[in-house]
Amino acid sequence: MLNHLDGVFHALADPTRRSMVERLADGDASVSELARPMAMSLPAVIQHLQVLEASGLVRSRKVGRVRTCSLDRSAFDRAEAWFTDRRITWNERLDRLGDFLADDEQASTAK
Amino acid sequence: MLNHLDGVFHALADPTRRSMVERLADGDASVSELARPMAMSLPAVIQHLQVLEASGLVRSRKVGRVRTCSLDRSAFDRAEAWFTDRRITWNERLDRLGDFLADDEQASTAK
Repeated sequence: MLNHLDGVFHALADPTRRSMVERLADGDASVSELARPMAMSLPAVIQHLQVLEASGLVRSRKVGRVRTCSLDRSAFDRAEAWFTDRRITWNERLDRLGDFLADDEQASTAK
Repeated sequence: MLNHLDGVFHALADPTRRSMVERLADGDASVSELARPMAMSLPAVIQHLQVLEASGLVRSRKVGRVRTCSLDRSAFDRAEAWFTDRRITWNERLDRLGDFLADDEQASTAK
């Protein structure tokens, strides 16, 4: 099974798709609203949307003739959490290094 | 010019490269230390490392015969900031929605 994060980071590796997610963070939007600021054809926009939907970051529903897209907060949160977890590891490592240096200094002073 | 985030998210879209970053968050490592837990050839590991270096997430330096890799904290932070900025936008939108609903309720009660 494709890892959730593989799809999410692949989806976010493209500036058009990132700007769609940036727009959707500010509120739901129809496909044509998403396409308006883009310098590309509607089929190209829809292709990018399909990558975002496949990753789980974006969901869409069709009511009548309008398809509305929204950001999936839980998929977004899981990707953000990957960064947070790494940062915690990194900070713990710096803390350990700080403790080690402090102990080392005390040991030198005590000599 | 390739956007910094394009390269970083592309690099992170692969589970092997993510596990390398996870390892490096815990401290610098030589190429052979990074390769040890991986079920792949050393050339394959080096190819993944090259993608990570091209993205700016990882740096390496060679001392004698040992190449040591480290995580570039600033590149990591910029990618994490992309998520943080979206979350802030999202939360502001929820706050606006909350204010709107509260005002609406007050207006209904006042009638």
